[in-house]
Amino acid sequence: MKLITTIKEIREIVSEWKKAGKTVGLVPTMGYLHEGHQSLIRQAHAENDKVVVSVFVNPTQFSANEDLSSYPRDIENDLEKSHEAGASLIFHPEVSEMYPDGFNTYIEAFGVTEVLEGASRPTHFRGVTTVVGKLFNIVQPDRAYFGQKDAQQAAVIEQMVRDLNFPVKVVCCPIIREEDGLAKSSRNVYLSEEEREAALVLSQSLKLAKKMLEQGEKSAEKIKQTMTEKIQQEPLAEIDYIKIVDHRSLQDVAVIEAAVLIPIAVRIGNTRLIDNFVFGE
Amino acid sequence: MKLITTIKEIREIVSEWKKAGKTVGLVPTMGYLHEGHQSLIRQAHAENDKVVVSVFVNPTQFSANEDLSSYPRDIENDLEKSHEAGASLIFHPEVSEMYPDGFNTYIEAFGVTEVLEGASRPTHFRGVTTVVGKLFNIVQPDRAYFGQKDAQQAAVIEQMVRDLNFPVKVVCCPIIREEDGLAKSSRNVYLSEEEREAALVLSQSLKLAKKMLEQGEKSAEKIKQTMTEKIQQEPLAEIDYIKIVDHRSLQDVAVIEAAVLIPIAVRIGNTRLIDNFVFGE
Repeated sequence: MKLITTIKEIREIVSEWKKAGKTVGLVPTMGYLHEGHQSLIRQAHAENDKVVVSVFVNPTQFSANEDLSSYPRDIENDLEKSHEAGASLIFHPEVSEMYPDGFNTYIEAFGVTEVLEGASRPTHFRGVTTVVGKLFNIVQPDRAYFGQKDAQQAAVIEQMVRDLNFPVKVVCCPIIREEDGLAKSSRNVYLSEEEREAALVLSQSLKLAKKMLEQGEKSAEKIKQTMTEKIQQEPLAEIDYIKIVDHRSLQDVAVIEAAVLIPIAVRIGNTRLIDNFVFGE
Repeated sequence: MKLITTIKEIREIVSEWKKAGKTVGLVPTMGYLHEGHQSLIRQAHAENDKVVVSVFVNPTQFSANEDLSSYPRDIENDLEKSHEAGASLIFHPEVSEMYPDGFNTYIEAFGVTEVLEGASRPTHFRGVTTVVGKLFNIVQPDRAYFGQKDAQQAAVIEQMVRDLNFPVKVVCCPIIREEDGLAKSSRNVYLSEEEREAALVLSQSLKLAKKMLEQGEKSAEKIKQTMTEKIQQEPLAEIDYIKIVDHRSLQDVAVIEAAVLIPIAVRIGNTRLIDNFVFGE
């Protein structure tokens, strides 16, 4: 499993692949890979001749009060997990390779970034779109893979690609769940046994919403009310948000007529969990 | 001479060219082509197998108080001039093709855009970088051609390409001048005979600066003072700015030690003219 650290070298390798007619999939990550990332790598491997996994803890998506230095890193594990899942190589540049002195140009998607997770993290998604745009230009993949778990991130990238005409197909991969329905997340390890049980209210409330939608309910307010009541029955759960939004623009919807995203964020004890589903796409 | 209006069609054509191993040059323009544009097209033709000239009056680089609708247009002339200079086709999309409903993502280069022409036009260069980024993603050229006449625009594009790693070589083409030194510009037709004569102070003041630099002068202030005095001798000329800036960052330089750009903007009667030169690159 090759570890490539320079832009020059990854460009040379991809250029050779392209000359040989190979298709290229890109899985952008911040490393510390787990089963969720592996499912993206596996799908990329199934759909492309070559797969690049980028591992880069991107400083521009952290704000001053978020601790970049404590973000977990384990490149040996990343190499192993990527290899297992079928990656061709890892691209793992230094910060100075991606952001040399004088760097001062950004890609910013508006609208879609100003709600949900972006409401409290005003520069986060600007960092995400900038680094993903850079990775698209460096690797020039045919397809790039993002998880539906981070639904807003996927919508932001889709808007960027659509608006700026990046020649890349964005593939949004389904949420991977435990058998009982809990969305897989590296944060689940923080849950006590009792909290782990309580955390089921997230996926259960989404199931309730799905059922109401399938039965023809059009009122976002009624659905959110039912979900809220379900989650409030669980004493360990504290709702951060429950939203029903247009699946592209992420703006609130009152009457459900087109495809919607239902994203929720709930604190279980000290652990903040997110989950979502798309209906009607 | 083909006129292509959709993104889908230009992508198909370029894709065929690339499969056949052809190199592609892009000359982005707002149309109403003149000899200056033709010099860019000729250089693109000399260095690439195929040349795309884009003709698009880009609304995002006009502010509300600038008259987009009165910007001159003449696509028949553009086709003729492009053909003459060796272009393969013109890409001439509608505004709705480039900016469909819901468009809301921008590329913005900071620092370099906040001075000179950008100081009084705060969103102008954001529009330029956004549309040029889109054109790069649509056409995927090997090389893109910009005129040194718009020195700041060239520096802004160079920063964008460097910072966002666009896989495009930016080629900056020299200023085309009349025999007596006046930089060619579509605005020169507005000059009366007397003003046309007076307009020579621009290139003459730059020649003075060049001479001082060649003789080892390091003080930006002294050079600017000499240029100012030269231009002030011409009663029809009114200085907008005379600057000596770092050729990359466009930030003011006091002591000249590395490559500098000397851009000037001068009103001759009612006509605002710009000129510049780079020293020490």
